[in-house]
Amino acid sequence: MEEKYVYFFGEGKKEMKALLGGKGANLSEMTNIGIPVPPGFTISTQVCDVYYKNNKIYPEEVKKQVNENLKKLEEKMGKTFGGEDNPLLVSVRSGAAASMPGMMDTVLNLGLNDKSVQGLINKTGNKRFVMDAYRRFLNMFGDVVLGVKHSSFENALQNIKDQKGVQQDTELDGDDLEKVVEKYKLIIKKETGNDFPQDPKEQLWKSIDAVFSSWNNDRAITYRRLNEITGLIGTAVNIQAMVFGNMGDTSGTGVAFTRNPANGENKLYGEYLMNAQGEDVVAGIRNPNPISELEIQNSEIYKQFKTVMEKLENHYKDMQDVEFTIQEGTLYFLQTRTGKRTAKAAVKIAVDMVDEKLINEEEAVMRIDPKQLDQLLHKQLDEVAKNNANEIAKGLPASPGGAVGIAVFSAEDAKEKTQQGEKVILVRKETSPEDIEGMDAAQGILTSTGGMTSHAAVVARGMGKCCIAGCSDISVDEKTKQFTTKTGVLIKEGDFITLDGTTGQVFKDKIRVVDPELSEDFEKLMGWADKIRKLGVRTNADTPQDSEMARKFGAEGIGLCRTEHMFFDEERIKAVREMILSESKEGREKALQKIRPMQESDFYSLFKVMNGLPVTIRLLDPPLHEFLPREDKDIEELSKEMNIEKKRLQDLISELHEFNPMLGHRGCRLAITYPEIAVMQTQAIIGAALKAKKEGLDAKPEIMVPLIGEVKEFEYLHKIIKETADNLILESGQELNYKIGTMIEIPRACLTADEIAKDAEFFSFGTNDLTQMTYGYSRDDAGRFIKDYKEKGILEKDPFETVDQTGVGKLIKMTCDLGRKTRPNIKIGICGEQGGEPESIDFCHRTGLTYVSCSPYRIPIARLAAAQSTIRNR
Amino acid sequence: MEEKYVYFFGEGKKEMKALLGGKGANLSEMTNIGIPVPPGFTISTQVCDVYYKNNKIYPEEVKKQVNENLKKLEEKMGKTFGGEDNPLLVSVRSGAAASMPGMMDTVLNLGLNDKSVQGLINKTGNKRFVMDAYRRFLNMFGDVVLGVKHSSFENALQNIKDQKGVQQDTELDGDDLEKVVEKYKLIIKKETGNDFPQDPKEQLWKSIDAVFSSWNNDRAITYRRLNEITGLIGTAVNIQAMVFGNMGDTSGTGVAFTRNPANGENKLYGEYLMNAQGEDVVAGIRNPNPISELEIQNSEIYKQFKTVMEKLENHYKDMQDVEFTIQEGTLYFLQTRTGKRTAKAAVKIAVDMVDEKLINEEEAVMRIDPKQLDQLLHKQLDEVAKNNANEIAKGLPASPGGAVGIAVFSAEDAKEKTQQGEKVILVRKETSPEDIEGMDAAQGILTSTGGMTSHAAVVARGMGKCCIAGCSDISVDEKTKQFTTKTGVLIKEGDFITLDGTTGQVFKDKIRVVDPELSEDFEKLMGWADKIRKLGVRTNADTPQDSEMARKFGAEGIGLCRTEHMFFDEERIKAVREMILSESKEGREKALQKIRPMQESDFYSLFKVMNGLPVTIRLLDPPLHEFLPREDKDIEELSKEMNIEKKRLQDLISELHEFNPMLGHRGCRLAITYPEIAVMQTQAIIGAALKAKKEGLDAKPEIMVPLIGEVKEFEYLHKIIKETADNLILESGQELNYKIGTMIEIPRACLTADEIAKDAEFFSFGTNDLTQMTYGYSRDDAGRFIKDYKEKGILEKDPFETVDQTGVGKLIKMTCDLGRKTRPNIKIGICGEQGGEPESIDFCHRTGLTYVSCSPYRIPIARLAAAQSTIRNR
Repeated sequence: MEEKYVYFFGEGKKEMKALLGGKGANLSEMTNIGIPVPPGFTISTQVCDVYYKNNKIYPEEVKKQVNENLKKLEEKMGKTFGGEDNPLLVSVRSGAAASMPGMMDTVLNLGLNDKSVQGLINKTGNKRFVMDAYRRFLNMFGDVVLGVKHSSFENALQNIKDQKGVQQDTELDGDDLEKVVEKYKLIIKKETGNDFPQDPKEQLWKSIDAVFSSWNNDRAITYRRLNEITGLIGTAVNIQAMVFGNMGDTSGTGVAFTRNPANGENKLYGEYLMNAQGEDVVAGIRNPNPISELEIQNSEIYKQFKTVMEKLENHYKDMQDVEFTIQEGTLYFLQTRTGKRTAKAAVKIAVDMVDEKLINEEEAVMRIDPKQLDQLLHKQLDEVAKNNANEIAKGLPASPGGAVGIAVFSAEDAKEKTQQGEKVILVRKETSPEDIEGMDAAQGILTSTGGMTSHAAVVARGMGKCCIAGCSDISVDEKTKQFTTKTGVLIKEGDFITLDGTTGQVFKDKIRVVDPELSEDFEKLMGWADKIRKLGVRTNADTPQDSEMARKFGAEGIGLCRTEHMFFDEERIKAVREMILSESKEGREKALQKIRPMQESDFYSLFKVMNGLPVTIRLLDPPLHEFLPREDKDIEELSKEMNIEKKRLQDLISELHEFNPMLGHRGCRLAITYPEIAVMQTQAIIGAALKAKKEGLDAKPEIMVPLIGEVKEFEYLHKIIKETADNLILESGQELNYKIGTMIEIPRACLTADEIAKDAEFFSFGTNDLTQMTYGYSRDDAGRFIKDYKEKGILEKDPFETVDQTGVGKLIKMTCDLGRKTRPNIKIGICGEQGGEPESIDFCHRTGLTYVSCSPYRIPIARLAAAQSTIRNR
Repeated sequence: MEEKYVYFFGEGKKEMKALLGGKGANLSEMTNIGIPVPPGFTISTQVCDVYYKNNKIYPEEVKKQVNENLKKLEEKMGKTFGGEDNPLLVSVRSGAAASMPGMMDTVLNLGLNDKSVQGLINKTGNKRFVMDAYRRFLNMFGDVVLGVKHSSFENALQNIKDQKGVQQDTELDGDDLEKVVEKYKLIIKKETGNDFPQDPKEQLWKSIDAVFSSWNNDRAITYRRLNEITGLIGTAVNIQAMVFGNMGDTSGTGVAFTRNPANGENKLYGEYLMNAQGEDVVAGIRNPNPISELEIQNSEIYKQFKTVMEKLENHYKDMQDVEFTIQEGTLYFLQTRTGKRTAKAAVKIAVDMVDEKLINEEEAVMRIDPKQLDQLLHKQLDEVAKNNANEIAKGLPASPGGAVGIAVFSAEDAKEKTQQGEKVILVRKETSPEDIEGMDAAQGILTSTGGMTSHAAVVARGMGKCCIAGCSDISVDEKTKQFTTKTGVLIKEGDFITLDGTTGQVFKDKIRVVDPELSEDFEKLMGWADKIRKLGVRTNADTPQDSEMARKFGAEGIGLCRTEHMFFDEERIKAVREMILSESKEGREKALQKIRPMQESDFYSLFKVMNGLPVTIRLLDPPLHEFLPREDKDIEELSKEMNIEKKRLQDLISELHEFNPMLGHRGCRLAITYPEIAVMQTQAIIGAALKAKKEGLDAKPEIMVPLIGEVKEFEYLHKIIKETADNLILESGQELNYKIGTMIEIPRACLTADEIAKDAEFFSFGTNDLTQMTYGYSRDDAGRFIKDYKEKGILEKDPFETVDQTGVGKLIKMTCDLGRKTRPNIKIGICGEQGGEPESIDFCHRTGLTYVSCSPYRIPIARLAAAQSTIRNR
């Protein structure tokens, strides 16, 4: 049997998007359910594929089927393609399975030539309308199909307007436009060496060629890469009878949504223009009317329109976005598709539709893009104000939300100015752990170096604070307290700037910031997600405040508490430094015993907030030199404060210096060389848990050893931790269950997970470090080439944002398999930054992890993404 | 049947070392082949194992079998254990399967008590001899078995000597020694609360206990760890009838070798003392005589002795190291074992024994410890001079050999002083690529930081130059040009120091250095190794000089030429910096075209030296900032030289700064962001090869892309390299075969090797980087905890020295399997530092690699190790 390449509208259905493209499938579907659609047919995406594979030559069947369908269309319309009396005009439009607005080519009014123009004038008696259609067609065909520059046509049109002394196209009459037409034909002849093709069949095939070719033009390829559209074989081509909204006052055109896409309200939304073509609405030459006015202007048409809209939504069971045209009192629908919407609208529509029994809870859960939820959880810049603002630089959107404040250039200034009542934005080359308090005080953070998982980015996300990282457009001078942008804008301390952490844009001056609101609908939707999902969702949190926030957002425990964040407090850092500067074990122990009650009280607060839920506490991780000052004046201060010779202090700092601190003396390596640190931290954790227990709270400590790469490291520390913990518990006379486990963040730990699982009661993937080491990328430095890599198509995604399933994922799977071979019920989680990223969550679900852990503000995203993974992978 | 725990000498054989220990197995073997051995028996190592597992209680059978064998011994000797007339005295000695000299306990003269002493005096008529034996026994038993401090006995002995007013023990007569005995018994009573046990059986069992216990004393455990002795179940205990060399002028004792262990000469070698006990020889109180004098002193005994020595060597087919005692004219052998020897002797003995048809070529190849060959290839410190020298510090033995010179503290000073005719030692905190010329000029290199694969270590080994790295005993002040040791020794510029790179020792002042010599025997042995081995051996070499040296040592090609080492030459660095400082592609290309002819001429020289052999050239690897100056004065100079504002230069250097350069913008990442670098290097390589070809040379270039982690990186560069190369070849009209392959040094490359092998014609493991990333250890920083890790038993070996077979090895195997799945005949080599380390070479052989590549001075080691692996794994 002959392969079917061409589908007359009605022969396809909405499920055939892959073959007919989104537009084509929906045009068939609409035809089938009785929506008034101008007839036409679709050349399938398969033809596009064959076209490219076959050196841009069509199989004979395609030609044949197009001719057959064209004939059918002529019959249906009672018109003749290229006819002199009643010519059939068609549009030729692209339409792939995924929406790629404006990326590919379109030709309208095809079928016009010198003869049919005359016929159409005779028939309509409207020379202006016909000549206008003809000159638009010549322009579009010349530009899109023949490659003549659009500006050549524009200039010619301008000349004629100048000659006549008018401003607007509408001021030209039929005769003027006839001159334009003649001029356009000359241009085409001159620029291509050939006459404009009068044969409509030639026009048609050249246009089809042009649409298929546009599938692989640069901007389409770029668009697909940027929007991560993969796996498509090509575009379809839709050939449809033209209808005209510009045939007088009973004609018109518009776009509309079945519900309000901004707030989700269940009310028709859109705009229209009478006596106009689609492009007039888009071009904004005349102001369109809100759709509600159509009811007043033409209640009959409005009633029809409303009925169709209801029918469409009920049929598609989702909010629809349509294009329509009224030709001399007859309503036609040219397109329908699922409408884009804000997060707020998405939530409301999904929940409303469940109430309306249009969809069920699972479908509602699938309707929301988890990443979109960020909009609901953070302060946002006012969109209107933002559109008029002065963008001065763009960096990485490291932590979403909007923030406005005066620029400050040090953590101390951030604290000080905030105490004085100012709102500040902290601007740094890069932040370090000693900046924590300043970051906490600031409204937002802007750094010129570092990537999506740099210190600034990670900490800001944890705090739910707006952050733009790696903004290489700016050059920061922390000494003179100012930064300059690439375009030469100078921002000094005290100048107002505004950040959009969702897009990475930096603005000069203030922009209004809008508060977030969590609706009842939102809570309802999250409840449904929780019923469905299999993955647990925990939080990365270091403070009672963060933990409380996380619990409010639905966290089921703490998956990662970084104990070192507690070390930077002004009160404590002194004791921490004393410990580091001690040259004997005794000295260190003495200092550690000063830190212990502080840590114990921190942990107690966490157990209190997380009552009944597990709290995973990671032992000290960063290299010790991070706790020592860097600047000369700070060293001087510390030397006085601690009564240590400055030279000695400098020597010590330089001794602790590392060439590659990420691969240096940190993590469990610290606890192995200084076991007394692990002992103190265990005492603090277990001590706090016992205290909480005594007060009737249900504390569930899980002690996590970082950076294990060799099983003997874990055995060594496991023994120390267990002995310390068991002794304390025994002394207390209470009962307490606790767990000891490891981070899995060193490739070698993955390769030897079977050995490590002998003693480890849980694993938690530290995917930041694991990604760093598996790729050999430092997350602090990789920014400078990852950007280039993405542009050159070497990396599709930043592996620090989304788990690299090919490489890192292989290690993760290996770890799960090896770990469960030794300990079948081992708990396995992920606490790297990717734990809150939907695609990575899907991977975690498929790999059978127990839970994901992410920063508090990502918890709702994770809950929703986990539910979607469950449904998707059933 | 009853388990056999005890073996009378003769019941075992030499192959039973695991069960009887080395000493016990050889005593049985000697007995069997008719060597005069004092009779005795061995309690097997299995008993030691049971003893520990069974809470230090012996099974009944052990007691029974010991008693039976003791009875047999009494009968054999015609003496009674503890007898009053003719008492049997025994020695109780440890003896494990591996030699652990002095680590475990020994008791001699056991069986003496107050009664048997009397009997023995009656029998020998020699009260002094007997009392001396008794007091030695009391001392040894008290110390070893009862835990009485040795010094208590020493003090008592000294008292009696003082009373008598004599200096030497030998000046005490029988009566004096009787007093000593009484005193010793009192000490034992006082310190242990019990009388010295008069029952010989009790003495015996307590001594056996002591020997077994000594298996797990701290020093024995440490010794086994340091010497990597694993897999043993325990020590055996040998109980042997005592013979005495101190019974008069017809008695004596000595140690001897069947050949000269220093130079391998086939001539008896050793020394002896008449009328002496073994410990007298060791203690050095009297000077022993060379063994040749025995022939003059007692030709009969000497003849017997020589016959036995010949018999032993013919039987064991290896040079033997024996202990012997002559008791009243009768010769006894107390021990034989394979003798330790210098590398020179080892080679000569092995080759001689093949000539003598004692062993075959393969056995000869197996006789040499490949690591020992280092001794033959490098200058060595004169051993005698060294023993008298003043050791001031100890670091890591990073590159073997001896070196002496004045200390200098910068590369420039090293060059300058050398030009002035001085010999210098370059002392730095750590070296960097810009120090290369200074390192080349220096006799040896000493650094205070960095590990076995730090820059200094790697480069020095490549140069075959002595280097001590990571010498944390010293604190270097490069500004004031001096260093201080931990013990306070101050060395200033111009002071002489001496390095022993083989041991890591640093000495004050000059020590004589001895030149190496490569014998004919050595060449012969290497020839045999080459016939056997399956693994290819290439070299890591960057200069014609190194390559020539390597070829002389037997390299079969270059496995790694680091092109960047050519960038540091004074002439070139300017052009390199110009390239780095260019802000446009055009500027970079211009600078690169200046570098191209220099690189081309370098590569040409390599192809010439390596005529007919493959030359693998790695594209630029290190981060660009390594080529820029660091010190303020150098920056100032460069800014003038290049006519760039100093501030601009500083900014650029700071922009290029990386937090973790190992994980930063380097390797193929450079060539991807600046493809023009790859283009220039390809042009230089192919251009040089074409030039060589034109001159009739056979150039075999292999272009190697470093740091691939994602297949698309390789695809991107492969295309550029191939196009560039093919164009050049086409233009030349010549034919040229070349290969394009990758380093495998990123864990992700291992995990995706099947994809990479699609285009890659060869893989070469960069095990330095692979180890860094698999473990997450920076080789520049890990020194500070790896030492601790080894001490705590967490790491058995430094994974930068020996391939970690568990983790890194798993990735290597995975790479080979995946790579060969895609490309079955892919060439796979290793060019990391471990490529010259015997254990790693064995792993490479077993994993089926094609070749190993190592620094020139390690080539003979690699050839030998590869041959041994072939034999071992057949």
